[in-house]
Amino acid sequence: MVALLQHGGNVVAFAKRVGCKADEVIDLSSNINFVKPHINLDFNTLNIASYPNYDTLYQALAQNYGLEANQIELFNGATVGIHTLFRELDLKHCTLYAPLYAEYQHSAKSYGYEIDIVNRFDGMRQEVKKNSLVIFVNPSTPDGIYYDLELLLEQWREKNCTVLIDESFLDFTDFPSMTKYLRDYDKLYILKSMTKFYASAGIRIGAVFSNEKNIQKLSEKEPLWKVSEFDSQYLKSALRDKGFKQRSQELNALNKALLIEVLESSPWVEKVFPSAVNFILIQLKDIDAKSFQEKLEPFKIMVRACSNFNFLDEKFVRIAVKEKDSIELFSLCFR
Amino acid sequence: MVALLQHGGNVVAFAKRVGCKADEVIDLSSNINFVKPHINLDFNTLNIASYPNYDTLYQALAQNYGLEANQIELFNGATVGIHTLFRELDLKHCTLYAPLYAEYQHSAKSYGYEIDIVNRFDGMRQEVKKNSLVIFVNPSTPDGIYYDLELLLEQWREKNCTVLIDESFLDFTDFPSMTKYLRDYDKLYILKSMTKFYASAGIRIGAVFSNEKNIQKLSEKEPLWKVSEFDSQYLKSALRDKGFKQRSQELNALNKALLIEVLESSPWVEKVFPSAVNFILIQLKDIDAKSFQEKLEPFKIMVRACSNFNFLDEKFVRIAVKEKDSIELFSLCFR
Repeated sequence: MVALLQHGGNVVAFAKRVGCKADEVIDLSSNINFVKPHINLDFNTLNIASYPNYDTLYQALAQNYGLEANQIELFNGATVGIHTLFRELDLKHCTLYAPLYAEYQHSAKSYGYEIDIVNRFDGMRQEVKKNSLVIFVNPSTPDGIYYDLELLLEQWREKNCTVLIDESFLDFTDFPSMTKYLRDYDKLYILKSMTKFYASAGIRIGAVFSNEKNIQKLSEKEPLWKVSEFDSQYLKSALRDKGFKQRSQELNALNKALLIEVLESSPWVEKVFPSAVNFILIQLKDIDAKSFQEKLEPFKIMVRACSNFNFLDEKFVRIAVKEKDSIELFSLCFR
Repeated sequence: MVALLQHGGNVVAFAKRVGCKADEVIDLSSNINFVKPHINLDFNTLNIASYPNYDTLYQALAQNYGLEANQIELFNGATVGIHTLFRELDLKHCTLYAPLYAEYQHSAKSYGYEIDIVNRFDGMRQEVKKNSLVIFVNPSTPDGIYYDLELLLEQWREKNCTVLIDESFLDFTDFPSMTKYLRDYDKLYILKSMTKFYASAGIRIGAVFSNEKNIQKLSEKEPLWKVSEFDSQYLKSALRDKGFKQRSQELNALNKALLIEVLESSPWVEKVFPSAVNFILIQLKDIDAKSFQEKLEPFKIMVRACSNFNFLDEKFVRIAVKEKDSIELFSLCFR
């Protein structure tokens, strides 16, 4: 078993430290959608004795994301997809556009990649190496900026790079997906966590999109069964909720506006970064992230310190957009 | 996405072929326990928005199987565990005691192992190569024999072999586990599907047991989250049903006796193999497996043809022990 690393989602450890129950914690550290899809399903009646068949799940995803089912491979969460891609692509070098999830650097190291890190906040003028595996999270994290990657994709192609775009947060926006380039560029992969937007970190499903040939090659080494029947049915039900995307966007926009208002009027906030998604990066003033977190602890509020992201220091904190009540309680901490 | 290979569990394809609904199929091909644990849990109320924490699941498994939590690593089904072990052990040669699941040979080929196959039905006098990865499924499949492996383990140790014992069906018996040798021999791994005994092929959990050091090494490359919260809660609830093992054994013994009676009185059965578990291998006479399966199709009954197992031909069929009604219907096919 693996020890849980310090992470936004570690509510149990936080609850223990502040002396409350896990379900009393107000978790503004984890960027799971606070809006939930309507699930019309009785999980108690599912047939879990039989082996799952994923055909209808793949079809539902293909339809939702404008793909063919054979352009998709599912994994037990996006992290498993990341590990698998680093391992199976088996390249020598990777280029990480940072800041980004620690998981990418961790996985690159595990599989012996030489690593270049490009600072997204510094104009991205740095040239990428030939044949590198380029990783770009779009919209980005922890800041939530959406980038138009058309010109960069041209540069990466000129260098024969394999390109992995992580679009786990794209569904929170109306921006276009890079899936439209899958037919053009045969070294393009798109990764998508299904747990962020669909409000279900307990569900372990992540997807990789690529062309049919790449997916066929990936799937050959994959086991027949890996996704839980419960998870499969949850996601299919979520995808059937056709009003969810709009509802999610509207409610997130409303509460994000409120959160920005709270942050901009706070004496401890130096800068609020613009964000296209359901979390906001801030730079603190006159206080560091650790002290800021300590001030929130009596309110049982968790936020994400960002000093372990490249190019960010102990002044940076990420705050997720959640329910109105949580934001109002959060605003009281500044009194 | 991967196409479903021919497998005992492919009920959907069978239903389509015989023109019925999937839930009308009587599946005697899949060796999932027909006895189910009592699950005291409302799956509709689980918190799936947060990231799972597996601590209590590992503790429950450790307690149930007489281990420490850090001697266990979980995977999304035993198949994922098999793939991972072949990949991470990264040896050159493996010895498969056959017949056994096709998955082992498939995985060995995927990861470039040279393969020796030892015929279990032929006295197992063949010597194993030095440094080989030995795979032994105990109780075996498709025949269900339990082997006392003490002497063989000594021979394997003398050859410095890494040893993987698949005990996925051991819980159906009262025979001892090889876990008692984990402290003695540092190249011993035990694999256990959690879906067979706990009646839940839709739940994707398999376990690898080994010493702390081996497990630590395996877990380093594993993602923080992989098992679904639904699956985790299901298995914890199943493990809390302390009467389950005895109930399962009693009901399986009863129905197995009935099934053996049916088989032994059948004009098409040449030989019924002795079995310690919940399935029975038979050798047919005057009919091959394909024709036998065709005779069962009007009754919507599936059985497992075994010609794709090493050392078995088109005369061999595996039949799972299921509910009494299913066995009685099966017996009507012989009229």
